[in-house]
Amino acid sequence: MLEARIRNAAVRSRVAAADDVQGWIQDGMTIGVSGFTKSGDAKAVLKALVRRVERTGEHLRIRLLSGASLGEVDALLAAHDLVSLRAPYQSDATLRRTINGGETGYVDQHLSETAEWVRAGYWGDIDLAIIEAAAITEDGGIIPTTSVGNSPVFVERAKRVIVELNPSIPAEFEGMHDIYTPEARPHRGPIPILGVRDRVGTPYIPCPPEKIAAVVVSEERDTPSALTKPDAETERMAGYILEFLQHEVRHGRLPEGFGPLQSGVGSVANAVLAGLKSAPVRDLEVYTEVMQDAAFELIDAGVVKAASSCSFTLSEEMHRYVLANFQRYRDKVVLRPQEISNHPEVVRRLGVIAINAALEVDVYGNVNSTHVQGTHMMNGIGGSGDFARHAALSIFVTKSTAKDGRISCVVPFVSHVDHTEHDVDVLVTERGLVDLRGLPPRARAKAIVDHLAHPDYQDALRDYLRRADARGGNTPHLLEEAFGWHVRYRETGDMRQRIAMFAD
Amino acid sequence: MLEARIRNAAVRSRVAAADDVQGWIQDGMTIGVSGFTKSGDAKAVLKALVRRVERTGEHLRIRLLSGASLGEVDALLAAHDLVSLRAPYQSDATLRRTINGGETGYVDQHLSETAEWVRAGYWGDIDLAIIEAAAITEDGGIIPTTSVGNSPVFVERAKRVIVELNPSIPAEFEGMHDIYTPEARPHRGPIPILGVRDRVGTPYIPCPPEKIAAVVVSEERDTPSALTKPDAETERMAGYILEFLQHEVRHGRLPEGFGPLQSGVGSVANAVLAGLKSAPVRDLEVYTEVMQDAAFELIDAGVVKAASSCSFTLSEEMHRYVLANFQRYRDKVVLRPQEISNHPEVVRRLGVIAINAALEVDVYGNVNSTHVQGTHMMNGIGGSGDFARHAALSIFVTKSTAKDGRISCVVPFVSHVDHTEHDVDVLVTERGLVDLRGLPPRARAKAIVDHLAHPDYQDALRDYLRRADARGGNTPHLLEEAFGWHVRYRETGDMRQRIAMFAD
Repeated sequence: MLEARIRNAAVRSRVAAADDVQGWIQDGMTIGVSGFTKSGDAKAVLKALVRRVERTGEHLRIRLLSGASLGEVDALLAAHDLVSLRAPYQSDATLRRTINGGETGYVDQHLSETAEWVRAGYWGDIDLAIIEAAAITEDGGIIPTTSVGNSPVFVERAKRVIVELNPSIPAEFEGMHDIYTPEARPHRGPIPILGVRDRVGTPYIPCPPEKIAAVVVSEERDTPSALTKPDAETERMAGYILEFLQHEVRHGRLPEGFGPLQSGVGSVANAVLAGLKSAPVRDLEVYTEVMQDAAFELIDAGVVKAASSCSFTLSEEMHRYVLANFQRYRDKVVLRPQEISNHPEVVRRLGVIAINAALEVDVYGNVNSTHVQGTHMMNGIGGSGDFARHAALSIFVTKSTAKDGRISCVVPFVSHVDHTEHDVDVLVTERGLVDLRGLPPRARAKAIVDHLAHPDYQDALRDYLRRADARGGNTPHLLEEAFGWHVRYRETGDMRQRIAMFAD
Repeated sequence: MLEARIRNAAVRSRVAAADDVQGWIQDGMTIGVSGFTKSGDAKAVLKALVRRVERTGEHLRIRLLSGASLGEVDALLAAHDLVSLRAPYQSDATLRRTINGGETGYVDQHLSETAEWVRAGYWGDIDLAIIEAAAITEDGGIIPTTSVGNSPVFVERAKRVIVELNPSIPAEFEGMHDIYTPEARPHRGPIPILGVRDRVGTPYIPCPPEKIAAVVVSEERDTPSALTKPDAETERMAGYILEFLQHEVRHGRLPEGFGPLQSGVGSVANAVLAGLKSAPVRDLEVYTEVMQDAAFELIDAGVVKAASSCSFTLSEEMHRYVLANFQRYRDKVVLRPQEISNHPEVVRRLGVIAINAALEVDVYGNVNSTHVQGTHMMNGIGGSGDFARHAALSIFVTKSTAKDGRISCVVPFVSHVDHTEHDVDVLVTERGLVDLRGLPPRARAKAIVDHLAHPDYQDALRDYLRRADARGGNTPHLLEEAFGWHVRYRETGDMRQRIAMFAD
């Protein structure tokens, strides 16, 4: 097996156990690892690091850059206080706790930008890259696994590379990836991608064989994603979006096929996409950062004919199915570095339809997608900004309430802004869809309150707007009350006014 | 004169007075006009419209799209309630009043996006385009004047075009503009601009001669820009930025020459650029949306060798000087459509250094650049988002206080978010410069308070952060106090606590 998977003999001679490569990891280092939304992440070497500090009692902290969230490893490292700084994304409960406690510094970055920063030196030296691979070519080229993430730039810039070779990944993965790296500025040309399926780079991450310090063989699987099943409300939201997109095609504002679809990470975005399965549409395309279960179901259903992504993030069942039947998807799917899957240039050129989830939206259409109560980080902005800013249509979805109605997801003023009203074209809740394009703020507010907010909160929102309006402005507000709902929730556990609670 | 300036005979036969083309303007129309930051704007026909309604007493309202702000015309139209909806930018006091009063609907849009919306039909039909021109070619091609704005897409999409021919613009302007129009999606290729001076389009706006319904000859000048002279504080800020950029070059994070510079509209941005005049730098480039006086002074001083822009927005004196000496600048300057001058694809490819002004910033680095007290629109977001998001370095500048110290421009929570912390790399006040790259939120807050805030407000900011920190979170806040400073200003005219006022 090893000869087929490690085709360079010198590199093959550097196979080592995860416990035996620990000398390359030292306190204070900046380490770049593969992994994007829990897929294709480096696993064995960092787990061995945890064992090492448990054994030695060392006080050691690294700066950890990745593609996006890692699986178990993010939790383990956080639980052992091994990370001083984490970027650009995470979605683990333990790590979230140390971030919100101020113990782990977290830099929340647009996912297309991290590679640019590494290349320009903004992240400083990359001491080590740890990259999961399906194979290593004759020339040292690294074949990624279920994600590409920032691995190409980490490999290029790191002082040395450790490869985690994972034989559980089918050999047929080779040829599916497309690794394209923009030149350093100021001598950069256009990214030559003109269509979802275009291949413009190499099927491997170029790497001089001598840079590969060690190869650790490990069959550890990706941490499965735990998606909530679509429910009646998310199905309704999917229906609104489909109807709207078809309406736009009829009016000549979108091409047939809409434009390549992007949908964010998580259950709601997955459910919305899944909602297209039974729709009378065919031959759609996907240009996204994460293909979740729904994307593969749509390929099987003939709804999607081609997909570009940065990773597969699948349930355990779907993961097994896709790996066992990979020949079925091989010609339809391209995995790219996140710098390219999310690149402003390509997203804008292709006319992507971006569908992302919001935590809360406000009456003027600003979106909070990261911070609960404006303070506590959930997952991070991820690629939502990359897509929302550059899409032909930027759609955000949220249910109108959370916590059994005690939280309104439509508020007077979002407690954190990730996407400004400039970048939000369409909002959707289970109550309806509003098209905000071309509406000035007062009209946006009326549409949002009338068609998206939950009835339990509509009167209070209207009352707020009416009193704010008396003070004038382009976006009238009562700043002394703007966060009043969040404050009330913090104090009482319910955003609804007491009077409304009595009426219940 | 007319034969040289209107080289198509059929078009020449359609010369008419501004009062005589009013039949083309009707209630409810959407009209697209030339003009970008008070330059190259349509003047005569819209002034005649004002005379017409004064004379007839008609109730007539149009939807008015432009490049950016118009000169006098924005004020006149607003004063006569002739505009129901205005986009994507404005900077006039009268219009601002009607916007903030809710009488004029205003849609504040990233300036690179308006053309995309017109092309896709999101703005609906364009009934009429009114375009100022220096000349009309044999084939109907329209040579713009001191700006390009959105004129190409308005001409392409409008049902008919009225040209305002302005013979006061030197004939040498012909050949300076570069009109490139991206294809409609989904069949779009890369924008082939690889350098500031690249010419990739035509020197005129293509237009079938039969589409030009009338030509109005008018010698009206652009409304001069009224820039405040640089003062000691803005000069200090310019000094910090220069020192920082040189530091980045020394550390290999920026190329020699920094990368093309963009600086926003207004006095502070102009002053910062002007501060480079006496700097030991040569052969810089500019890739921006507006060239103000300072840009031409830098060309004269040999500091800037080439500039790409969408408009010239000049003081009366500089306007006269540039027009009289245009041969000196002709080879160094390209004017482009705003869709291209501000295009994410090109801004990111070239590695632009973006310098834009903030109204206020908050402790985590979010920027408000548009709404006073979160409610009252100043000018609009303009191109700041186009540049800040895609720049190699995104720098925002503001003085630490306004209104003689009664307003702190560093606040706990900005009252409106135009640029999120994800898009702000460097902040500058007269007190210092902070490099926020790679800093997690708590570290950002400390740097911002310690190095940028005014001493009158530092203790209060530290107190806020200390108490917020006790509640935890990635970006700790006390939502019940977050806008307390704005509320206090509204109530007392001073953001400082009373105790601080007594201490004065």
